[in-house]
Amino acid sequence: MDFMVRPIGRVESPLSDLAQAPRQGDEGAPAAWLVFDERVREGLRDLRPGADVIVLTWLDRARRDVLAVHPRGDRARPVTGVFSTRSPDRPNPVGLHRVRVLAIDGTRVRVSDLEALDGTPIVDVKPVLDRDTER
Amino acid sequence: MDFMVRPIGRVESPLSDLAQAPRQGDEGAPAAWLVFDERVREGLRDLRPGADVIVLTWLDRARRDVLAVHPRGDRARPVTGVFSTRSPDRPNPVGLHRVRVLAIDGTRVRVSDLEALDGTPIVDVKPVLDRDTER
Repeated sequence: MDFMVRPIGRVESPLSDLAQAPRQGDEGAPAAWLVFDERVREGLRDLRPGADVIVLTWLDRARRDVLAVHPRGDRARPVTGVFSTRSPDRPNPVGLHRVRVLAIDGTRVRVSDLEALDGTPIVDVKPVLDRDTER
Repeated sequence: MDFMVRPIGRVESPLSDLAQAPRQGDEGAPAAWLVFDERVREGLRDLRPGADVIVLTWLDRARRDVLAVHPRGDRARPVTGVFSTRSPDRPNPVGLHRVRVLAIDGTRVRVSDLEALDGTPIVDVKPVLDRDTER
């Protein structure tokens, strides 16, 4: 059984193509706006600047028919099963982005360090929990 | 534009109802099996026991028409926008579960501490990165 993701908004970012995008784990992803649909406004009401959140995106330019990749697209690295990589190419291309909320303007939320292309659909936002980071 | 999630497997867990399930942040979620579809076998080939991974699930028993909830279902807590909670009830009910791989048997992967009901569809598996946990 399949399920339908209906995006709740879009990323507004200076990152406009994959070649420009920093690779996983590198420094320097830019700040960006999360622009939410008016229909989800109530869900945003307790977000505050300074909050650490996980943004889930749908990586709509990814390939879904790929099960093994060269990590970071680097052909010098051995081909690796996608579930051991953060490649956008995978059966269900959901992106996970840990960011900090910088500012809020209605349904527009400014966040730090978002490695996602301009226009990327937003799926969800969740607070970071201790259990995400401790083991 | 909507997107289709096609699950890549299912959770096999002793947790069979919501009342039994531990709440977010509590201790004591049980070990469980991730049972993957044969078609994604190649994607699993580099998973190893001891790996810390993030399992993404589709919380198929959640409500999608809810934008504010009492956190943990506790009516003593003030109603909170869902994007500031980890409630399963939200527009796109994707679950995030940080777990450790305990054992691998073909397309069956045993993991620790999985707070997901028996039968829950699996959407994705990703390795934990430093940037998920450091800020």
